[in-house]
Amino acid sequence: MAKRLGRYTLALENPVHIAGYAAVGSKMERDGPLGDRFDILNDDSYFGQKTWEKAESIMQKQACQRALDKAKMKEEDIDYIFAGDLLNQCISSSFSIRDLGIPFFGLYGACSTMSESLSLAAMTLEGHMADRCIASTSSHFCTAERQFRFPLEYGGQRPPSSTWTATAAGAVVLDNDPDSVKTSIKALTAGRIIDLGVTDQNNMGAAMAPAAADTIAHFLTDTSVKLSDIDGIFTGDLGTVGSELLYELLDRENIDIRSKHQDCGLLLYDRDKQDVHAGGSGCGCSASVLCSYLLPELEKGSMHNILFIATGALLSTTSVQQNESIPGIAHLVQLCKETKGE
Amino acid sequence: MAKRLGRYTLALENPVHIAGYAAVGSKMERDGPLGDRFDILNDDSYFGQKTWEKAESIMQKQACQRALDKAKMKEEDIDYIFAGDLLNQCISSSFSIRDLGIPFFGLYGACSTMSESLSLAAMTLEGHMADRCIASTSSHFCTAERQFRFPLEYGGQRPPSSTWTATAAGAVVLDNDPDSVKTSIKALTAGRIIDLGVTDQNNMGAAMAPAAADTIAHFLTDTSVKLSDIDGIFTGDLGTVGSELLYELLDRENIDIRSKHQDCGLLLYDRDKQDVHAGGSGCGCSASVLCSYLLPELEKGSMHNILFIATGALLSTTSVQQNESIPGIAHLVQLCKETKGE
Repeated sequence: MAKRLGRYTLALENPVHIAGYAAVGSKMERDGPLGDRFDILNDDSYFGQKTWEKAESIMQKQACQRALDKAKMKEEDIDYIFAGDLLNQCISSSFSIRDLGIPFFGLYGACSTMSESLSLAAMTLEGHMADRCIASTSSHFCTAERQFRFPLEYGGQRPPSSTWTATAAGAVVLDNDPDSVKTSIKALTAGRIIDLGVTDQNNMGAAMAPAAADTIAHFLTDTSVKLSDIDGIFTGDLGTVGSELLYELLDRENIDIRSKHQDCGLLLYDRDKQDVHAGGSGCGCSASVLCSYLLPELEKGSMHNILFIATGALLSTTSVQQNESIPGIAHLVQLCKETKGE
Repeated sequence: MAKRLGRYTLALENPVHIAGYAAVGSKMERDGPLGDRFDILNDDSYFGQKTWEKAESIMQKQACQRALDKAKMKEEDIDYIFAGDLLNQCISSSFSIRDLGIPFFGLYGACSTMSESLSLAAMTLEGHMADRCIASTSSHFCTAERQFRFPLEYGGQRPPSSTWTATAAGAVVLDNDPDSVKTSIKALTAGRIIDLGVTDQNNMGAAMAPAAADTIAHFLTDTSVKLSDIDGIFTGDLGTVGSELLYELLDRENIDIRSKHQDCGLLLYDRDKQDVHAGGSGCGCSASVLCSYLLPELEKGSMHNILFIATGALLSTTSVQQNESIPGIAHLVQLCKETKGE
C-alpha cells in the first residue's frame, strides 16, 4: 500500500512502470539540442491540418499512438487516459482522445499537466484501479500565441523574460506489470497553489518558481531523501529567470539544488542559436523533454533517480485583464530506474 | 481491493463515504424548486465582487468551506482537492483553491466535472492514496454567456433547445472512515468521448446524450445491476431535448430508463415559471442538484441506490468556429445509502 509521507508526499509501494513513451515536435524542436531524440518530427507546424488547433490534436494523438506502439499495446488495452492542454476547454486533448476510444479523465494543470497526469495515472495504478494508463499532453506555439497573446500576424514583440511555447507533445504509457525491469515511479509530491503576487504574464518563470520551490522543499522534507541521492532535478519550464528565482527561494530553506538542477525549458532549445528568450515553455515542453531525453537516459542507466517537476501558471487572459496575479502550481514525480532483484 | 467489471466499471470494495457537502446558488436557483434546499444563496450575482469571474471563484470557495464545516473538518485535514469549471484555463477553481492551501488536481470535464471529480476522489480514497478529499465545481450564467456566447449587454436571443447555465457551485467532502454510516460511492463507470457529429452549440443536450447513453449502457452491462434495483438515474444537464434523445438511444439497446430517469437540468429550475428554455446546464447545475437534493434524500433514506451521471460537452468557441462537431463525455457514480451492519 502506498505510504503517505508528511502532508504532501506519497511513496508508492508497488512498481508503477513506464511501459512506453513518445515525444512529437516540429521544426524548432528539431533544431534544438534534443532534435535527434524525438520520435516524430514534422516541420509543417500545421501537421497537414487546416488549423493549428487541429495540428495540436494530431500531435498529441501521434504521441499516444507511438507510445502505445513502443509499449506493444493497443488503445483497447488502456483502462484510462489522463490528459490536458493549454487551449480553452482543453480541446487539443479532447479531440485527440475522441478518436482513441479510451475512458478519459480531462485535466487542467497548465504547463504542470505532464506531472499531474503522471501522478494521477500512478495513483490509479498503485491503488489497483487499473492495469494500464496513459498520461499525455501537448502545446503549440501558434495556438498558444494567438490565444494568450497576439495573433501571429501582428508580430508582437516579446520581452526577454518571456518564454517560447513548445510545439510538442509527450505521452507515457504506465502499467504495474510486476515482472518488468523498467523505469518506475517511486514517489509523488502533489502541488498546492502558490501565488506570491506576480502579475507580469511575460514572466511566467517568476510566477511558477515559488510553486516549484514549495513542492521541492516538501518532497525533501517529507521523504528525507538527500540531494546527494538524486541524479537530477528537472523543472518544467521556469526558464532562466524562473530558475534563478527558484534557487533564491530554496536558499531560504537552506536547500541548494544548483548542482543538480536543470530546466526542461532550457534543455529543449539552444538559446544561443534559437530566439526563445528565457527558454521553452508550454505543456509540451516538459512532456517532450521527459519523453525524448529523461526517460531514455533512465532506461540507458545514465541516470537512476530523478525528480521531474512540471510547473504551471494558472492564469487566463480574463484573469490578467481583471488584474489578478498569477497563481502557480508544481507537481513532483520521482522516477527511478529499477534493477531486477534490487 | 476495487474490482474491475468489464472495460468501463470499477466496483469499490471499501466504503468511500460522503462526509459533507454543500450547494451554493444565486437568485434563479433560489426561485427554482430546490431553492429552499441550498446551503448558501446570494441574490447578488456578483457575490460582492467586482466581476462575475471573481464571483464564481467565491461561490466555489464558499461551497468547499461549507462542505468542510458540515463534515466537521478543516482545510488542513484534506489530502487532495479535485476541481474544475467551464472558464478558460479553469480560473474559477484555481482562484478558489488558491486560498485553501490544499494540494490540488485541476480537472477539465466541462459539465461532467462533478462526476469526474467524485470519481477521481473515490479512486484515490479506495486505493488508500488519501484519507480525505474534496470534489468541487462551479458555473456562472454571466461568465459562461460572455465567454461562450455573447456579452450579456448584447441581449442575444436563445433558441428553445438552448439551456440556462446555472449560477451555482457544489462541493463534496469524501473520506474512507470505516465506522461511518453515511452515503457511500459503490461503483464508477468512466466515460469515453462520444461524438455523433452534432454541431449545434445551442443544442448541448443532443451533443451529450450519446455519451450519457454509452456510459449508462456500460454500467448496466458491466455490473448486471437491474434497473429495478435503482431508485433513480440522474443525468447532468441534458434538458428536455437531450433527455428524449437519451431514451431513444437506450431504446436501441433495449434499455428503458424512462420511469427511473430525471435530469438535473430539469430539477433545478421550474420551466413553466422560469425562462430557462430546455433546462439548466453548467458544471454547477448537476453539482448543486447533487448537493442540495440527491445527497440529502439519500441521507434521509428516501432513496437508497442512485446513479449520478454528469455530462459534458467538450467544445470551445474555437472548435465551433473551426466547424468541429461537439464531443460529449459522461462519467457515472453509483451512490448508495449504507445501513450499518448490512
